[in-house]
Order: sequence, then structure tokens, then C-alpha cells
Amino acid sequence: MHLDKTKAFRALIDSKDTPRVIKTLTKNNRNWVIEHPQLAFNYTYTHLTNADRDLLTDLSEEQTVIEKLGELKKGAILNIVEKKAIHHYKTRTLQDPFFTTQFDRIKTFINEQFATRDISDVVQIGIGGSHLGPEAIYKALRSNYATQVSVHFLANIDPLNLKHIMSRINFRSTLFIFASKSGTTLETIENLKAIQDIAYSYGLSQSGFKSQCVSITQKDAWLDDKKLFTQSFYITDEIGGRFSVTSAVGITILSVAFGWSVIEKFLLGAHEMDLLSEEKDPLKNAPLMAALISIFERNILNLNARAITPYSYPLSRFGAHIQQLECESNGKQVAKDGHFVHYKTAPVIFGEPGTNCQHSFFQMLHQGTDTIPVQFISTKTNSTLLKANMYAQIQALAFGNLDKNPFSRCQGNKPSTSIILKDLTARSIGNLLSFYENMIVFEGFLWDINSFDQEGVTLGKTIAKDILKKA
Amino acid sequence: MHLDKTKAFRALIDSKDTPRVIKTLTKNNRNWVIEHPQLAFNYTYTHLTNADRDLLTDLSEEQTVIEKLGELKKGAILNIVEKKAIHHYKTRTLQDPFFTTQFDRIKTFINEQFATRDISDVVQIGIGGSHLGPEAIYKALRSNYATQVSVHFLANIDPLNLKHIMSRINFRSTLFIFASKSGTTLETIENLKAIQDIAYSYGLSQSGFKSQCVSITQKDAWLDDKKLFTQSFYITDEIGGRFSVTSAVGITILSVAFGWSVIEKFLLGAHEMDLLSEEKDPLKNAPLMAALISIFERNILNLNARAITPYSYPLSRFGAHIQQLECESNGKQVAKDGHFVHYKTAPVIFGEPGTNCQHSFFQMLHQGTDTIPVQFISTKTNSTLLKANMYAQIQALAFGNLDKNPFSRCQGNKPSTSIILKDLTARSIGNLLSFYENMIVFEGFLWDINSFDQEGVTLGKTIAKDILKKA
Repeated sequence: MHLDKTKAFRALIDSKDTPRVIKTLTKNNRNWVIEHPQLAFNYTYTHLTNADRDLLTDLSEEQTVIEKLGELKKGAILNIVEKKAIHHYKTRTLQDPFFTTQFDRIKTFINEQFATRDISDVVQIGIGGSHLGPEAIYKALRSNYATQVSVHFLANIDPLNLKHIMSRINFRSTLFIFASKSGTTLETIENLKAIQDIAYSYGLSQSGFKSQCVSITQKDAWLDDKKLFTQSFYITDEIGGRFSVTSAVGITILSVAFGWSVIEKFLLGAHEMDLLSEEKDPLKNAPLMAALISIFERNILNLNARAITPYSYPLSRFGAHIQQLECESNGKQVAKDGHFVHYKTAPVIFGEPGTNCQHSFFQMLHQGTDTIPVQFISTKTNSTLLKANMYAQIQALAFGNLDKNPFSRCQGNKPSTSIILKDLTARSIGNLLSFYENMIVFEGFLWDINSFDQEGVTLGKTIAKDILKKA
Repeated sequence: MHLDKTKAFRALIDSKDTPRVIKTLTKNNRNWVIEHPQLAFNYTYTHLTNADRDLLTDLSEEQTVIEKLGELKKGAILNIVEKKAIHHYKTRTLQDPFFTTQFDRIKTFINEQFATRDISDVVQIGIGGSHLGPEAIYKALRSNYATQVSVHFLANIDPLNLKHIMSRINFRSTLFIFASKSGTTLETIENLKAIQDIAYSYGLSQSGFKSQCVSITQKDAWLDDKKLFTQSFYITDEIGGRFSVTSAVGITILSVAFGWSVIEKFLLGAHEMDLLSEEKDPLKNAPLMAALISIFERNILNLNARAITPYSYPLSRFGAHIQQLECESNGKQVAKDGHFVHYKTAPVIFGEPGTNCQHSFFQMLHQGTDTIPVQFISTKTNSTLLKANMYAQIQALAFGNLDKNPFSRCQGNKPSTSIILKDLTARSIGNLLSFYENMIVFEGFLWDINSFDQEGVTLGKTIAKDILKKA
């Protein structure tokens, strides 16, 4: 049902004028933390009162989010617009016949490659879901695990992106991975043609260059072509691009980089958080509580944006992945029943890594005219200095100061949450990825929208084709 | 005077219920473009009516923005909070004795370095203004100009950032540039100590390692230390970090990378746009018109964010620099008279390069519940495909579709502006940098705030120190 038809939401709206002062709410040192083995979620410094938290728990029940998650995992057609089930959860159980077959093929292929020739570089050619998620995970893992090759991502249709990457690789010892679910993504096909031209200019034949190329796509899609690719690894039509990191789309390049034994732990880490997300009580389910707070801040407090600030250099590109995941999944205006919603959905998601962000947009968070919730991401293994800086920002946002000089005054009462990873192991990184995927799916259930299509991007593609025809 | 005290603003507020439909406004093919030699600004696809545009011109006069810019350039103490003049304009006239002296010293130093030893890498250690601007310009220039060395930026206090960069350089043939205006920036000092420790672990003495190190700071600041640095290049206290790209902070590393002859053109390009920004008529002054539209969208249309999407791979990091420039300069709640403002100031600025963004957050722009203006950045030299994609997005945002299927419908009437560079030469890149600096200064004048301090970041620093003392 539409969010604004639920009893809990109406009660929250009725309580809109309750004074919610973080300083008061936290004065008895409340410590609202959900502890999972690899990941803790701290929501102490939010505007939530006890009553709000109870109502949000009611909301979760009214919108039957845990039941919907159960249906989803049983194969229900929850992508009602495109009439598809949802498969990304299946990729990491390591028990699904389709996906384990693909992973076995990937493992065999990689072992053969490393056994039979030198590989200096691997380039993944893909955009959107075939780029941001795999890149974020690659950067997250490389601080802790040795990479066997140099890893590059080519997404943009701008030939200057291709040129830049070509200047950094040894072409003849490079493995090229072309990833596109539909097999027809404009940018990926154009970059494929351009790379083939370069190969031919080096005197390689189609069949010669083929040994350096694999594709990741659906079976029998355009990219599933034995003339062009030495192997094609498959995903199902039921995996949205932005949810495809744990399918062949992400796993191929990550396994080339780090080896399967690392990536298996990453997958099981994601599966671990998938299972933890099945808990019905939001007080024991971090992604669910995060989703409820998101709805509270967006629809009750009317906040329009959320900053994601990973205080951990290896997690620098997580912000871009989460931005995609949230905005593409939940940037919707129509409920599942086809009627326009009368409430806001996905907020603007933006961010840069901490501590860098303290020297860029944090001035606005402290003294600007909007209240912007911050979601900190951190690890228990962080340096003392890095930790101190993050806790200082949480306090400065929450409590401000009473400086008499108006130019120095910080009003405070700015909310934040934090996600604390136990460490930067593959298991923890898997947890973090799944935390966000589940949070965003829960948000969609709460908003009563379809988080699994992206119809809004079609119009631009159609117009671009028209422009090119006329040109 | 406060924005809401001006006649023009009140008239705009009174006209708030005017229907503003981009499709209607543009049906006679209006072509609102301000053409400068290297940069054009297109604001056709905004909600501005003719009457709005006239009132914005009045607003510019009422707030005497051009007069204030003139005062600023004459040395007025416009940073009233810190009681300082504003110097960044002076760096690129190439006529100011202080800054030309520094640039001459930098040129001499670099020539000597390349003449006397091998330099494989250069690392700039700095954060905020000493990082984002120089990095954005470096990436913008490298597609068009050969780099003499490998260039790296170390900003974050996370030791994993340092570790990553150390794994990529040849330490003994690296030039290290430590940049901090105050000379006491926590992150920069910590990274200095860590790099010194590495040098000593390689058996280098303090005086031996000194030959690889220069600093950029104020004269007699802590980093101005002949025992630690073979040279120190100076900036004045009147240059804010985020405006320091065209001072020694940016020019040293950019000259090491590309040579002075390229960087001179970049500086003159910035100066060129500085001069064009002195034009009183907003219809002939791109940064001023952009600033007026920003105020119109933020304060009349109540839009809370702006997406910056460079459709040009080399401009990929411009978004992060502009985010810093806008949010740190204009994320303020107090007018120059020390009273709280009763209107919104800096919006959230976010972005990713096009076409990547079409596959991430553009779904939300087309079908989400908020209207988010987009500022496209492009070049006339872009490929046909890249151009077609950008124009398609502009049209899709503005006109939407009338699809009967509610899941496919795009409401349209979403505004955008575009900045089109003639090319990616150093001159054009200089224009682009100055365009944003001037736009943001104009916004500050219009909002009647001090764009040149950043008092809001002090509190977090103080609390961090307290936490570390207790630890």
C-alpha cells in the first residue's frame, strides 16, 4: 500500500511538531547500535524518539517488508513493470546451479589463462552497474589483498577515456572483459569496436584477438558471440545492472585480480548479510533500521539529501555505487499500482571520502541552511587519528556550539548514522555491499515502488538515436 | 543588503505562481546563449521567463555585484570575518610582483631539477584546496598535453592512502610537494612525518631527503623550514584554499607535469574569464548569469540541489572541485551583517561524468520526485556520439514524454544549463576554472554572505583534538 495510507506513517506525520533535539535525546548516553558479526550500525545521533522508533517498527510490519523479502527470495515476480523475479540474492548462496556453474567456468578459465600466458592487465568494459559496483569493490579489496594484474575500468563513451586507458596497459598481454546484460549497451559496443580497431591496427586477426576477449551477458544476447569472445559468462535477465556485482559481472574481474579464494569470502560475506536482513525486528536488523530512518528523514523531517562519507580510503568509490543503487532503484514517482505517489522517494545521495570531505563540503553541513543527514562508514581497524576525526564530526554535527560570534556558531542538531565494519576483509566488504542492497530494497517496499526497473533512462536513449539519425 | 530585502527579489517572489513551462518558453526556439571566445553558456532550457530575466538583471544591480567585484580587485577587505582582502585574481594577471616572483622561482627550480636529476614521479601532499582543484586541472590537461612525470595526489589522513601511493612511485626519484597555507594542516603534517619515516628507513638523512622536498605555504609558516625543504614557494594569507589553484599551490605541480609554457596559457585563460566577468550586463556575462540562475532556482523555485555533469572524460573531477568551491564558500547561514538569513544559500552539488551518470542517477532526475537542475559541461571537440547523448538528455529533461504507461512517463519540465568549451586547451580550462570561481563569488554577493571564510570547519577540528587528548 502507498506509504501515506499506513497507520504508522499517519501517526508519524501527526507527531511532526514533536521537539526532536539530538542533544536532549542523547543526554542519558543512549547507545543505539545494531551489532552484527562483521558490521555494526549506530543510529544514536538521529532525531528518532522512542515513540518514533516504535512507529517505524509498526510501519515495517504494515508494509510487510520482511514478508516481501521472503517472497522475493522464493521467486515472486516483484519487478512488476518488467514482469521479472529478482535474482541477485541467489548469486552468493553458492548453491544455485546456474550461478555456481558460471563461477566454476570463470575459475577454470582464469586458471587456464594464468597457466598458459602472461597477463599484465585486465580491463572491464562496461557502464553503470557493470562499472561502479565492481570498481568500488575492487578498490575496497586491494588494500588488503595482493592483485595479480593491473586492473582498469572503461565506462565512458568519450574516446578520451579509451585513449587514457590504452596509454596505461600493455595491449598484447591484456585481458578484455566486455560486460553488458542486454549485450547492446551503446557505450560498451562502441568501445568494443574501438578496441577491435586498435587490435587490428596491431596486425591481429579477429580470431587472434578473440583469445584476449571474454564477454559477460545473457545467453544468446548479441555479446554471446563465439566469433568475438573466447568465452562468454552468463547472468540471468532477473539481475538488474546495479545489483550485478556478485554475478559474473563483478566476479570475473575480481577473481582475475584477487583469486577465487578471496572472492568466495566476499560472496559469502554478502550472503551472510542477506540472511541477517531476514530478521523481522528492525532493532536487530541493520539494513532494515537504516531503511526506516531513511524514510523518517525523507518523509517526516523532509530532508532532501544524504551525504555518504567513507572514513576509509579503500572505500572511496562506495559513494558513487550507492548513489547509483539508490537513485536508479528508488528515484521513482509511481507506486506499484501505477498511481503517482504523494510523497518523496529517493533523496540526492552524494559524498567524498573522509577526511577529505571535512575540507570540502562539511562547511555547508555545519553552517549551511539545509539539514543534511550524514552516513559515515568506517572500520574498527582505522587509525586513531582517523577515528578521532570521524567521532569529532559526529559530535560537531549533533551538538554544534553556542559561540556568541554568529560567524562561528554551528547550530547543531544535524543527524548522522554510522556503519562500522569489523575490518577490511573480503567478508566485511561483502557485508557492506549487501547492507546497502538490502537497505535500498527495503526502502522500495516501504515507499511501495518498484525498485527493480529503470524506465526513466529509456527516453534519453531514444532521443539520442533520433539525433544521430538526423545528423 | 539581505537578498530578501531587495525589490527585485520581492517581485520575483510575488511572481511565484506564474506558470513556467520550459516547453512553452522554448516553443519559438529561443536561443539564450552567452558566447565568450573560449566558453559559451546556454541557459535556454531554464524556467526563466523574459520578466524573470529582467528582474534578475535588476537584482544584480541592486546587489551591486559588479561594483563589489571591482572593489574586491582594488583590494577591499571583503572577507570581513577574517579581515582580509581577496587575492586569487592577482595570481593570473602575471603582473603582480609577489606572484610573478613566486612563479619565476618555481620555473627556475623546475628547470634545475630536470637538468640535474631524473624525476619519475611527483606527489602533492595536501587536502581540500591543495588537492581537489590541482587534481581536477591536472586531469583536465593531461588528455591534451604530454606529462613529463607521473603525478599523484595524497590528501587523506588514512595511512592506506599513503600506502597506495607508495606502491606506485619510485621513491628515490620522486619530488614531494607539501602544500598547506597555514602550514599546520593536520593531514599534511601527519603525511609529512610518515613520508620522512619512510625516507629515513631507506637510509636517507634529513638533509639528504630535503633535496626531494619542497613546500608551499605562507612566508614564515611552520612549513617554511629550510631544514626540511630545499625550497618553499609562497602564497599570501589572502588566498582561500579552494581559490588557490592558480597560486603556487596548483602551479608548482602543474608546471612540473606539463611545463611552464602550458601553465602560462592556463593562467591567462583564467585571467581572460576574470576580465569577461567584469561586464555589467548579465546577458553578456556568463558567470554572472549562471549565478543569477542559481539564486532563481534555489530561492524562487526552491530547488535544493544541482547536478554537475561534465560530458568530457578529462573533466571528470571538476565536479568534486566545484562541490568544494560552492559548499565551502556559500554554505553559510549568516549575512555579512552578522544576522541569520531567512533564505537558503548553497545547494547540494553533486555529479559524475557523462555518459556514466546516465546509467546511475539520471533515472532519479527523469522520474524521481524532486526537480534537480543539471549543469552540463561539454566541449565543441566532443565526439558526435557524446554530443548526441548530452543533447538528448537536455531534451528528455525539458520535454519528457506523454507515455500513457505511468511507469514509462517522464514529466519533463526539468531545467538544465550547459557550459560549452571551445576545446580542451589550457586556455579553455583556465576559462572554466575562472567561470566557476566568479560564479560562486557572485552568488555570495547576491546572498549577501561572506564567501571567503570557513568558520564552520573549526569546531570539528577542536573536538578531534579533545578526543585525541583523552585517548
